Amino acid sequence: RFGYFGKDKPEVVRLLLCNVSGCLTDGQIYTSASGEEMVSINIRDQIGISMLKKEGVKVILLETYPIAKALAVRLSERMGCPLLHHMDDKLKEVERIMVEEKLEWKEVAYLGNDEADVKCLELAGLSGVPVDAPTVALNHTKYTCHNAAGHGAVREFAEHILLLKKKAKSQMEQDRICRDAF
Amino acid sequence: RFGYFGKDKPEVVRLLLCNVSGCLTDGQIYTSASGEEMVSINIRDQIGISMLKKEGVKVILLETYPIAKALAVRLSERMGCPLLHHMDDKLKEVERIMVEEKLEWKEVAYLGNDEADVKCLELAGLSGVPVDAPTVALNHTKYTCHNAAGHGAVREFAEHILLLKKKAKSQMEQDRICRDAF
Amino acid sequence: RFGYFGKDKPEVVRLLLCNVSGCLTDGQIYTSASGEEMVSINIRDQIGISMLKKEGVKVILLETYPIAKALAVRLSERMGCPLLHHMDDKLKEVERIMVEEKLEWKEVAYLGNDEADVKCLELAGLSGVPVDAPTVALNHTKYTCHNAAGHGAVREFAEHILLLKKKAKSQMEQDRICRDAF
Amino acid sequence: RFGYFGKDKPEVVRLLLCNVSGCLTDGQIYTSASGEEMVSINIRDQIGISMLKKEGVKVILLETYPIAKALAVRLSERMGCPLLHHMDDKLKEVERIMVEEKLEWKEVAYLGNDEADVKCLELAGLSGVPVDAPTVALNHTKYTCHNAAGHGAVREFAEHILLLKKKAKSQMEQDRICRDAF
Repeated sequence: RFGYFGKDKPEVVRLLLCNVSGCLTDGQIYTSASGEEMVSINIRDQIGISMLKKEGVKVILLETYPIAKALAVRLSERMGCPLLHHMDDKLKEVERIMVEEKLEWKEVAYLGNDEADVKCLELAGLSGVPVDAPTVALNHTKYTCHNAAGHGAVREFAEHILLLKKKAKSQMEQDRICRDAF
Repeated sequence: RFGYFGKDKPEVVRLLLCNVSGCLTDGQIYTSASGEEMVSINIRDQIGISMLKKEGVKVILLETYPIAKALAVRLSERMGCPLLHHMDDKLKEVERIMVEEKLEWKEVAYLGNDEADVKCLELAGLSGVPVDAPTVALNHTKYTCHNAAGHGAVREFAEHILLLKKKAKSQMEQDRICRDAF
Repeated sequence: RFGYFGKDKPEVVRLLLCNVSGCLTDGQIYTSASGEEMVSINIRDQIGISMLKKEGVKVILLETYPIAKALAVRLSERMGCPLLHHMDDKLKEVERIMVEEKLEWKEVAYLGNDEADVKCLELAGLSGVPVDAPTVALNHTKYTCHNAAGHGAVREFAEHILLLKKKAKSQMEQDRICRDAF
Repeated sequence: RFGYFGKDKPEVVRLLLCNVSGCLTDGQIYTSASGEEMVSINIRDQIGISMLKKEGVKVILLETYPIAKALAVRLSERMGCPLLHHMDDKLKEVERIMVEEKLEWKEVAYLGNDEADVKCLELAGLSGVPVDAPTVALNHTKYTCHNAAGHGAVREFAEHILLLKKKAKSQMEQDRICRDAF
């Protein structure tokens, strides 16, 4: 690998892992007598995910809690990204994905919101938590979103990722100029 | 055209273009397992649109994002105004409408909320953005609503338009009196 | 009529007129592609209405705006009080009710939230407006609720009415004691 | 019963009684023209209930107000705990449960939100009320949640119970060490 005096390439996020309940949604589950369940997502979060995909960042949605399978499929279709369901051990599942995608932790961004996410929040190169999440998650994140879950947190985190990506690229460019100058 | 020393007629808004998702609605899309999608609008925003129509301001709703066609038709019926669907290039579409309606930008008010609206927000004679919109939109609006999308922003912008219309009329009246006085 | 030196009986509210959209609900109307409309009410507002009825205050719900007839019937059943639909001229309708119920304005409490309510807010012996209502309504109310529409405003106004009723009763009792003392 | 100089065992909560409307939900009831009713619960509150069950605290849901029987059954299934419906006299019903479960008041935690809960809030060893509940309930609770009903209050109260349980255990452990030391 190339680099100025062997320095590593600045980290660039290649994958965003994002919880559905409590990150993409506000955690509210609407239940009716007929058993139909409903969740709501915000269009600006959907745009945030599109922005990432356009810049080459893969997005995978995670769902630990029992929302109906059919509903999970719907969300996955609407967002245009895969959704992993029924994850008993999140860390294990995430590490399996990373092997599959040939990624290291520093290339992974993780948006989580509860106790089950703590290890991933700590290991990911970049981690975020919506401002209204339980304290246990807020205590282990690198970045705390100003926006609440289901109301802009995903969009904000996406913009944060893209900004860092831009900075990293400009740093690489600068390094290249320095190399070429000698 | 008449006018005091050839001065132009004060600008009067004749058309309001307004986004559905993120302006008329709060951007939340409720999804159920059966695939039925739901959005919510506020009655005071609906009244705002009626107030504009009663004062001769045309209202056209714009929808960029994929809400179900049937849902768009419902909203258009409820609001009593046309709704344009699937706008890939908003600026181009809006300019097409303006030619059709024989309007100039200074006669157009635009209520938008995201990156796709930036050019229209800059060109429109009057532009507004709900207080909870992404920064990129807030940075390019002439008027920032105190109310949030889906919860009064349209009503507030409608009242703002009507106030300016009233001012413009009273200015015209005053000009007429000045003319007649000599 | 009896009374201490012919003084009038202290005013006691016998009827509450209350808007549905924007008072009992938060004004949000949920619309789906299939055309089904939904509104939400809060259980504490429902309890507020029960409290009034238990103390002998009649409650009538008013709905100006086009919510589905079937939905209006549902709300009326849930709340256990009549609901008047499609009121073009609110003042006229309310005065018709007052004749029917043999009531004067000082015996009527009115909870409203928009321009169409202004005259009734001014005439009613007691009038209220939820804190998040448009300015035009807030400018003409006697009492401004601390709670928002659809989230406790009706309950708060009901408690306010019952408090005044209690005060009026205790005043009557005191007057009776004074009379008896001489 | 054993104990240091006959001192009572520190109180440990064994049962949480929790209202559905106004504690587990935010009190909003969504009604559609077809008569279908909907409520929403938050995933973090559901996790709070799981946390309690995992630590051996039984949870029973209470519902006074008329939500559809079928909806109550759904909620009970989703939460994985029994739900008692149509409680005319809450105190009597709760005391019946306590006899059944062989529990004293000091072993019972109670999360309530309105007038009907006042007596139970006063008698329970530990009592809580969501921050947005009517004043009458806030005036009689031992603990006021920082979170609102339907948006984290149950989770917060569950964490509060577990913290106290932990403290009580550590106290018992310390007492045992003291006893053994002599």
